[in-house]
Amino acid sequence: MSAQELKQAKKAVEFNRESLESVLKRRFFFAPSFELYGGVSGLYDYGPPGCALQANIVDAWRKHFILEEDMLEVDCTMLTPHEVLKTSGHVEKFSDWMCQDPKSGEIFRADHLVEEVLEARLKGDKEARGVASQPAEEDADKKKRKKKVKQIQVIKLEDDVVKEYEEILAKIDGYSGEELGELMEKYNIGNPVTGEKLEPPKAFNLMFETAIGPSGQLKGYLRPETAQGQFLNFNKLLEFNNSKVPFASACIGKSFRNEISPRSGLLRVREFLMAEIEHFVDPNNKKHHRFDAVKDVTLKFLPKEVQESGSTVPIETTIGDAVASGMVDNETLGYFIARIYQFLVSIGVDPERMRFRQHMSNEMAHYASDCWDAELHTSYGWIECVGCADRSAYDLTVHANKTKTAMVVRERLDEPIQIKKWEIDFAKKLFGPKFRKDAPKVESYLLNLSQEELEAKAKELSSEGKIVFQVEGMEGDIELDDKFITIEHRQKTEHVREYVPNVIEPSFGIGRIIYAIFEHSFWSRPEDTARAVLSFPPLVAPTKVLLVPLSNNAELTPVVKKVSEILRSEKIPFKVDDSGVSIGKRYSRNDELGTPFGITIDFESAKDGSVTLRERDSTKQVRGSVADIIAVIRDITYNGVSWEQGTKHLAEFISQSE
Amino acid sequence: MSAQELKQAKKAVEFNRESLESVLKRRFFFAPSFELYGGVSGLYDYGPPGCALQANIVDAWRKHFILEEDMLEVDCTMLTPHEVLKTSGHVEKFSDWMCQDPKSGEIFRADHLVEEVLEARLKGDKEARGVASQPAEEDADKKKRKKKVKQIQVIKLEDDVVKEYEEILAKIDGYSGEELGELMEKYNIGNPVTGEKLEPPKAFNLMFETAIGPSGQLKGYLRPETAQGQFLNFNKLLEFNNSKVPFASACIGKSFRNEISPRSGLLRVREFLMAEIEHFVDPNNKKHHRFDAVKDVTLKFLPKEVQESGSTVPIETTIGDAVASGMVDNETLGYFIARIYQFLVSIGVDPERMRFRQHMSNEMAHYASDCWDAELHTSYGWIECVGCADRSAYDLTVHANKTKTAMVVRERLDEPIQIKKWEIDFAKKLFGPKFRKDAPKVESYLLNLSQEELEAKAKELSSEGKIVFQVEGMEGDIELDDKFITIEHRQKTEHVREYVPNVIEPSFGIGRIIYAIFEHSFWSRPEDTARAVLSFPPLVAPTKVLLVPLSNNAELTPVVKKVSEILRSEKIPFKVDDSGVSIGKRYSRNDELGTPFGITIDFESAKDGSVTLRERDSTKQVRGSVADIIAVIRDITYNGVSWEQGTKHLAEFISQSE
Repeated sequence: MSAQELKQAKKAVEFNRESLESVLKRRFFFAPSFELYGGVSGLYDYGPPGCALQANIVDAWRKHFILEEDMLEVDCTMLTPHEVLKTSGHVEKFSDWMCQDPKSGEIFRADHLVEEVLEARLKGDKEARGVASQPAEEDADKKKRKKKVKQIQVIKLEDDVVKEYEEILAKIDGYSGEELGELMEKYNIGNPVTGEKLEPPKAFNLMFETAIGPSGQLKGYLRPETAQGQFLNFNKLLEFNNSKVPFASACIGKSFRNEISPRSGLLRVREFLMAEIEHFVDPNNKKHHRFDAVKDVTLKFLPKEVQESGSTVPIETTIGDAVASGMVDNETLGYFIARIYQFLVSIGVDPERMRFRQHMSNEMAHYASDCWDAELHTSYGWIECVGCADRSAYDLTVHANKTKTAMVVRERLDEPIQIKKWEIDFAKKLFGPKFRKDAPKVESYLLNLSQEELEAKAKELSSEGKIVFQVEGMEGDIELDDKFITIEHRQKTEHVREYVPNVIEPSFGIGRIIYAIFEHSFWSRPEDTARAVLSFPPLVAPTKVLLVPLSNNAELTPVVKKVSEILRSEKIPFKVDDSGVSIGKRYSRNDELGTPFGITIDFESAKDGSVTLRERDSTKQVRGSVADIIAVIRDITYNGVSWEQGTKHLAEFISQSE
Repeated sequence: MSAQELKQAKKAVEFNRESLESVLKRRFFFAPSFELYGGVSGLYDYGPPGCALQANIVDAWRKHFILEEDMLEVDCTMLTPHEVLKTSGHVEKFSDWMCQDPKSGEIFRADHLVEEVLEARLKGDKEARGVASQPAEEDADKKKRKKKVKQIQVIKLEDDVVKEYEEILAKIDGYSGEELGELMEKYNIGNPVTGEKLEPPKAFNLMFETAIGPSGQLKGYLRPETAQGQFLNFNKLLEFNNSKVPFASACIGKSFRNEISPRSGLLRVREFLMAEIEHFVDPNNKKHHRFDAVKDVTLKFLPKEVQESGSTVPIETTIGDAVASGMVDNETLGYFIARIYQFLVSIGVDPERMRFRQHMSNEMAHYASDCWDAELHTSYGWIECVGCADRSAYDLTVHANKTKTAMVVRERLDEPIQIKKWEIDFAKKLFGPKFRKDAPKVESYLLNLSQEELEAKAKELSSEGKIVFQVEGMEGDIELDDKFITIEHRQKTEHVREYVPNVIEPSFGIGRIIYAIFEHSFWSRPEDTARAVLSFPPLVAPTKVLLVPLSNNAELTPVVKKVSEILRSEKIPFKVDDSGVSIGKRYSRNDELGTPFGITIDFESAKDGSVTLRERDSTKQVRGSVADIIAVIRDITYNGVSWEQGTKHLAEFISQSE
C-alpha cells in the first residue's frame, strides 16, 4: 500500500463519533470522573493510555518550546487570593452570560442557546427548501440538538432572515450580555423545549471560590489561567535572566472554570491542563531573532475583517506575508503562531483541519490588544485550542500600580537622552516629627506615584497650597503643604531607559488538543469497519511497541525476555501481550490503543534471533535482527525518520495472519 | 581530594539554615506566592531551578515505580463532590485540632502548641541545669521559638516533670482533641505570648470547600489526596489489567490541605504535589514476587512499641528480618518500604538521616490498618515525607456499599468449593404490576444487599411476615411479604472466589522531599564559607552542564556553538555562561544552583577540540575530546557510573583559576 493509498484508506469509512467514543471508553483513554456517584458534568479522569498520551504531549511541548527557546519554567499555586484576581480584572469580567428559566429553574448559557436555536432554524429552513446539508455539519447538528434543541422544525425562513441568522452566527462569540438579550427578544428565543421566555442574561463569574485559612476571612479562587502567577514573579524572573529582555516564562498546570453547563466531552470542562507562555518583549521592538526560520510556513488565517463581513472563508498565506501586510501585528506574535502550527502538526493534528482565527474587537479578552486562536476542526465544529494573545503591558501595569512596586526593565542607553520629568523632593527632617514610625510609609507612597499622579499632585499643591491623600495602613487623610514637599517638572539627562514590557501569550488547552487529535487520528479499516485505528504519531503514542510471541511455547520465552530487557534499557515504552488469542486480534486491540509498532516473536526468532516488525497504519511488516528492529523503532519514534527510510535496508515480510 | 576527604569537607562547616535559605531565595528555587501582595502563608511558587528539580524528581519517580513495576498511571480531577469525601470519611475525620484565644482571636494548632511549649520548657530546664543542648537541636528550637514561643524562661523543672514532658513529646502525634485539651489544662498551656487561657480544642476540617455549577448547589472540595480518584476507577483499572491482581495504579498531582497556621516553609503548605500508588492485593496473599531482590536492604525502624515506651532510638535491621519477625506486617508493605528507601537515596536523600516510623494505634488515619512513615531529618526535626499505609479493604468497601456497585476481584478456582450463602428470589411477575417503572430499582436494591443485610432481612421476614425498606429515588416505605420474596441460607458450590482487594499505599509528599534534599545537599566550602554548594545527584540536578568559554574572544565561539549543539541533540540540559566575570565566580554561581558539571572552553579547545570537565563537589578537572567528555557526562548522569570510573581514561587537568 502506497502512502497515497493509505491516505485514501483512512478516509474511506465515514467518521462516526459514536465509534470513536466507544473505543475511547473501552480502552479507558478517559472516563467521566465520579461515575460511580453519577458523575459531575465537566469533570473527566484520564485512564492509563490517556494519561500517557497527555504526558507525552506535555513532554513534546516542553521540548518544542521551553528547551528549544530557553524559557524559564515556573510552577505557581492554583489557589489565588481575591485581591490578585480583582486587580487582574477577573473578579469583574471573567464571566459568561446565563439565562434562567423562571418556571423550571433550568439555566442556559446565553450565547450557546442563541447559536443552537438559530442553527436549528437554519437547518429546518434547509430541509423545507429541500437542500441537503453537508454530512459533517449534519452530524454536528445532530449531536448539539440532543442537548438542548430537541426537534428541528421544518419551516422555511425568509431569505433576509436566513442572511441575518448567518451573520449573527459568524459573530456569535462577540456579543455582550445585553446584545444577547436583545437577540433573544428579537428572534423569540426561549427555552427550546417548552418555549418559555427566559430571564435576561446575567453575568456569572466562572471562578471557583474558596476560603483560605481557619478563620475563613481570606477569600480566594482557583486560578482561571496560569498567567497571573507568572506575572507576579516578573521581577524575580527578570533578575534570574540577568535583567535581559526579551525572555519567556512558561507554566504547565491545571486551571479551573466553573462552566455554566458543560457538555461536548473533553472540549468544555471545569478542570483542565494548560500550558502557557508569557513572552516579555520591548514594546518598541517586537521583532523576533528567529522569525526568518519560520517565515515561509503557510497557514490558514481568518482575520477579523473577514468574520465581520459574515464570511468564514480563510486566507491562505505565509506567516511572513501575514506580518508584512500587517494582518498579524508583529514578528513575535507571528513567530509564535508558526511555532504553534509546527507543534500541533508534530503531535498529530491534521494541518488541513487547523486555522488561525483573529478575535473580533468586541470578543477580545479584557487584557488583550490582539489575539489569534488556533482552531481545530472536529465533529463539534471549529474549536479554539490555543490562544495567542498580545496582552500588551496590561497585567504588569495593573499589578505594579496596585502593589506600588515597579515592574519594569531598565536598559542602559548607549547615548544619554534628555527628558522632562515630574519629581518630588521632601523635607525629610520634618517627616519624622510629624509621622513618627509611619514616616517611611508616607515617603514610600509619595516616591511610588506615577508621572500622571505627580502631575496632578503638583497642580493640587499649587492651587490648594497642600495635597491630601490616604496611605494604606494609616488612618484618615494626610495633608502636606509646600513646607514638606516640592513637586517640579525638570529637565533630566537619562542614562537608563525604563519600560514596562509587553507580553505575547501563547496559551494551550491540552485537553482540547487531545480531543482533536483523537478525532484527527481515528479511522476504521475499509476491509473491516469494526477494526478501528488511532494513528497517533509514534512520538506521542501511549505505548510504542507491542511485543507478541506467536505462541506460549517455552521456546519463545527467552527471546521475549531478551527483547523486553533491551526495550526497557532503551526506555522505549512497551507492553507484552502473551494472551492466547490470535495475533490479528492482539494487533487489533493495540491499533485501538494507537500502538505504532508490533514485534512478533516466532520460532524462527528462537533459532536465528530475527524478529518481525509491524507498522500499525499500513500493517506492513519487515524482518531483521533484534538490534536492527529496535534501532528502526528508536529512529522513527524519537528522531523523526520515516518508515520508508528507516526500513529500506530490511527485508519485507509477508504475513499470513492479518 | 579522596572521597573520604570530600565527605569530611562537606561536614566541616556547620549547617546554617539562614545560609541555605538565602541561596534558595537568591537563585529563585522557590519563593512565597503572591509576595507582591504580602504573600499567603503556606503557598509557594517554584522558580526555574526549583521547577526543574521537581520535574526531574517526578521523572525519576515515574521510572523507579511506574515503569519498573508496570503500574497504571491515571490523572483524576482535584475537584471532588461532597458525597465522595463523605463516604471516604474525610468530611467527618480529616481535621486538625485548633484552639482560639478568646481575647485576641488568634488561632493555634493544638498539638503544635503543646509540642512547642513543652520543648521550650525543657530547653529552659536544661539551661537552668547548665546542660548545653545539641547544636542541631538548638538551631531547630531557635527557629520554632521565633514563631510562637517568643522567650525561653530559664526555669528548672522537677525530674519527674521532665520525664512526663519527654514522654508526651514522643507521643505527640497520637493525641485526640480531648486529650490535647487535658494536657493544656494540666500543664497550664495558653497563648505563649500573653499567657491567656485558650478555648478547648475544636476540630477544623482541612479541606478547601467550593461550589460546582451555576446554581451553587453541588458542594465540592479540593481533594486532600489523590487516592480517592484511583479507588473510584478500580473497576475500570481492573478490567484494563485483564482482571489480574495484584496490580497498582499511580497518580501524580496536586492536593490541598487548609492548614491552620502553616509555617516551616516548604514543609507545611496548603497546596502540594503528591505522588501516590495504590497497590491492590489479595488479602490472603500479601507476598511480593520481587521481595527477594530487596530483602537485604538495611533500614532504621522506629516501631510503635519503642515509641510507646517513650524512646526514639531506632532498630537497625534488614527489611527481610523486619518482615520475618512480624514487625512489618507483610512482604508487600516491606517491599515498598525498601523501594521507597532506594528511591529517596537515588535522588539525594542522606541515608543516615532517614528512618521508618510506625504509626501508633491512636494516630493512624481512619482508613489504615498499618502505616510506616519514611521520616527525613532536617533542622526542623524529623519530618514525615512518605507514608506507606496498608489501607486494608476500607476504601473500596465504603464506596461499593454507598454506590451499591460491586468492587471485587473474581478469581476462577482450580477446585470448586462449598459455601453457605444467603440468597434472595423474587416473584418477578408480581413486581411489574406493583412497582411499574420503579420495579428495576427495587430489584436492584434487593440484589445488592450484603450477606449481613440479607440475613437481617430473612429474620425480619420470618418474624414480621414482611420486610420494610426505602429505595433512593422512591417515596415512602416499601413493604414486601413472602408472596413477593424468598430469602434462604443455601449450600452453594462456588467456582469463582470473589474478594475485595486490600490496598497498600505508598504516598509521597514531593515538596517535603525536595526541602529535605536541599538540607541534605547543602554545604559550604571550608576554604571559603561564603561559597555554598548544593550537591544534587546529577540525575535530578536542574541543569547538568555549565558551558564556560574562558573569554569572549571570537575564536572560542565556534567551539561553544559546537558543544551546545551536541548537548542539545543529546537532550542534556545545559546553560552557557559567557558573562565577563572570572571562571571561578561563574562556577561558584552554578555550585549554588547545583550544576554538577562544567565544561571550560579555552584557546587549546579552538586548536585541538579538547575541553576541560569540572566536577562540582571535588572541583576536580579532567581533559578530553568533546565526544569523550560528553560521553562521561551522559554515563554519570543517566547510567549511574561514578566519577572515578567514568573519567579513569582521561587526563587530570590542574586548574589555576579556582
